[in-house]
Amino acid sequence: MTNQSQIAVKIVLDLWNSRVKATNEIFDKLTDEQLMQEIAPGRNRGIYLLGHLTAVHDRMLPLLNFEKQMYPQLDEPFLAKPDKAVAEIPSVAELRGYWKTVNEKLAAHYSSLQVDEWFQRHTSVSEEDFAKEPHRNRLNIVAGRTVHLASHIGQLALIK
Amino acid sequence: MTNQSQIAVKIVLDLWNSRVKATNEIFDKLTDEQLMQEIAPGRNRGIYLLGHLTAVHDRMLPLLNFEKQMYPQLDEPFLAKPDKAVAEIPSVAELRGYWKTVNEKLAAHYSSLQVDEWFQRHTSVSEEDFAKEPHRNRLNIVAGRTVHLASHIGQLALIK
Repeated sequence: MTNQSQIAVKIVLDLWNSRVKATNEIFDKLTDEQLMQEIAPGRNRGIYLLGHLTAVHDRMLPLLNFEKQMYPQLDEPFLAKPDKAVAEIPSVAELRGYWKTVNEKLAAHYSSLQVDEWFQRHTSVSEEDFAKEPHRNRLNIVAGRTVHLASHIGQLALIK
Repeated sequence: MTNQSQIAVKIVLDLWNSRVKATNEIFDKLTDEQLMQEIAPGRNRGIYLLGHLTAVHDRMLPLLNFEKQMYPQLDEPFLAKPDKAVAEIPSVAELRGYWKTVNEKLAAHYSSLQVDEWFQRHTSVSEEDFAKEPHRNRLNIVAGRTVHLASHIGQLALIK
């Protein structure tokens, strides 16, 4: 008999996996040149979204209490600053590699967690606050980041 | 003591509510004329996404076993057919009203459900299949539709 917490975790992880897969299919289909294009006139370039998503997922490693962030050098050009504000950024090829590595790391950690561990607090909430707001757990982070990823998939799909 | 199923339901409903709110803020900011524009050259118009999201949410009413779909006339122009394929479609003003009504209906039904009822099957899965795949429940539908909504929010945000 499957219990409800286990089912809820499966729902969130299935959605995460399906959206990462959909994103990979889009990135795989786009050439490096296409990723240098803007998603719409005057908007972010594909390379910026690739770097941005990689940085956001990379920061999930410490947020979920798994391990240290792998590529802190992405924070400035892809989180703190808008597209085209930083002159020196990694190449599309480098970012493609980082993106793959970060998601593989996350997947390995996910698969090692027991159901109860998904309901443990994430590292940006204190123990005191977590006692009052027990929904601020790891599962919440993955659900929220899946929604974040989806919003950018809708944009990446516009690159021709 | 809050249990895990209750926490998981809150996580999904909080995300749904925050994304519907974000969408409403975008629609409220855009004029009817702006919603007649394409999100990017050669892509869907704002009015199509408004109709599409309304139709998808409307169909959640029977899918979640709440009540009949309210606006079946939206299926053809906004689900079966792509943008600009159907000449006669409702006005932006009409669609804005339908969008609001459908989401209010859903919210009223959501608030009447007990936690256990979120883990009941949705109406497009048979009892036999549900016994084997208990994650095909109401909560799964709302989580999936939140991700769907997010993907279009990312596009609506591009309208200038």
